[in-house]
Amino acid sequence: MVAVASQTAEIEEGLAFIPKFDGDGLLTAVVTDAKSGDVLMVAHMNDEAVRRTIETGEAWYYSRSRRKLWKKGESSGHVQRVVELRVDCDQDALWLKVEQVGPGACHTGRRSCFYRALPLGQKGALKLEFRDGAKTFDPNAVYGKS
Amino acid sequence: MVAVASQTAEIEEGLAFIPKFDGDGLLTAVVTDAKSGDVLMVAHMNDEAVRRTIETGEAWYYSRSRRKLWKKGESSGHVQRVVELRVDCDQDALWLKVEQVGPGACHTGRRSCFYRALPLGQKGALKLEFRDGAKTFDPNAVYGKS
Repeated sequence: MVAVASQTAEIEEGLAFIPKFDGDGLLTAVVTDAKSGDVLMVAHMNDEAVRRTIETGEAWYYSRSRRKLWKKGESSGHVQRVVELRVDCDQDALWLKVEQVGPGACHTGRRSCFYRALPLGQKGALKLEFRDGAKTFDPNAVYGKS
Repeated sequence: MVAVASQTAEIEEGLAFIPKFDGDGLLTAVVTDAKSGDVLMVAHMNDEAVRRTIETGEAWYYSRSRRKLWKKGESSGHVQRVVELRVDCDQDALWLKVEQVGPGACHTGRRSCFYRALPLGQKGALKLEFRDGAKTFDPNAVYGKS
């Protein structure tokens, strides 16, 4: 227990980056707009994505569905300039405050991926409501889908 | 492919809550301070945690380490009043804008779990720096550890 307590203190109070990757080698990355504070997206980063982001100052992630490293904006031009990168207490999550270049971060054509609310107080089959749901760009044009 | 496209449209553009739980039955929950926009913590919610949060307006989560449902603040009194709950495009992540009651959200005694930065530009063994690292409460006193 002493060893465990010591390791916990090192992770929580120390100044070494000791990432706690999940079973797939990934950290959770929360991305907020540095100006508005709005959450733009939630993504994942592997070791290489973290290193490239720190070296270049632009956001790199790891796509679980495509199983590959990707630079945000590599298709759309909507790159994210990292203003600050933070790590949480147990070092399994990162917070990127970014300057979002272009009209939006979401592949659906919106500034943020969080464009629907789950209103409080409801029961049973839960319903959503659009909030900031207007599209800021045409994803078919930007991503070249037919 | 038509069926897949149709389901994707329903998930991304529809108004039914169709949560995409991970293999452990969990969604990622990002929690921000409704006033400052700062990320306070990243946690997880199962179906029951989502329902209790929506019914009560206070944040409930699922602890992966303790394998149980928990109400934020049940030990500390530092409950989170939910101002708005949003869901992301593919419905595997939630964003809770909260009013954090009490001096902080982090079990280490700080307002936010993100009290260290990973400075950009560095290489090799990555180092952290404290940012907003001062403790706002004594976790031993609040959580009753000896």
